Amino acid sequence: MTRYFEDYIPGTVADCGTVSVDEADIIAFAKEYDPQPFHVDPSSQSPFGGLIASGWHTISLVMRQLVEHYISPESSLGAAGVDEVRWPRPVRPGDTLHVRATVTEARRSASKPDRGIIRTRIEAFNDSGEPVLSMTAINFILTRP
Amino acid sequence: MTRYFEDYIPGTVADCGTVSVDEADIIAFAKEYDPQPFHVDPSSQSPFGGLIASGWHTISLVMRQLVEHYISPESSLGAAGVDEVRWPRPVRPGDTLHVRATVTEARRSASKPDRGIIRTRIEAFNDSGEPVLSMTAINFILTRP
Repeated sequence: MTRYFEDYIPGTVADCGTVSVDEADIIAFAKEYDPQPFHVDPSSQSPFGGLIASGWHTISLVMRQLVEHYISPESSLGAAGVDEVRWPRPVRPGDTLHVRATVTEARRSASKPDRGIIRTRIEAFNDSGEPVLSMTAINFILTRP
Repeated sequence: MTRYFEDYIPGTVADCGTVSVDEADIIAFAKEYDPQPFHVDPSSQSPFGGLIASGWHTISLVMRQLVEHYISPESSLGAAGVDEVRWPRPVRPGDTLHVRATVTEARRSASKPDRGIIRTRIEAFNDSGEPVLSMTAINFILTRP
């Protein structure tokens, strides 16, 4: 289903499915982009009691769910930014994350009437239903042609 | 050089070096994590006039510079979150990004005196000196033993 600006109605909640995180992926991502001991070395004296995913890896996995379930290639014009990124709990090998997106604001552009700006609260929860990520994205979206 | 909490003095600016972004890397990252047409397909009708990097890829590349030049494995206890992520301009294939970190706040924990919380303004600039990323990270850091 293609979503246009008009479809992002404040209050709408989109279930963006689940994504699993395994140890090999955690280490591979972190070796490339965030090589801190507690992200790359399972035997490190981790302050978290074991290997945890880079927060940027968690967000990247969540992003894929958003591209598949929330954003449409026909209307997405990219993002201006993201506010209040929080990682309240570690993501560990074997976790399955459940991703949810809630439209919090939608405003048509005054200067460019073919698009609008939406704000979305994005959340991911682990298998126990505990939040592991929250953030608010600011996206530009085309109106229905 | 190992940095501890005491070394993150507000106002301190750390040069975190440069990182180059090529087309193959942009496409590989985006195919995995952010498969929007303007990140994966050089021939797409991109609203940006060509292929651009996923904002999460840009941040991930910047993160590696921070791990190498700003954070120390002996003292880093991870991040609580990041505020006000902005991507003011696209990052394109061939760009070299210059990364800078400025300590904006440092506060010792009242409940856990072996650590403190620092806030850091992180910025990346392209070859023309134009900002392509800014954000404020919130990190937990051990005090000097």
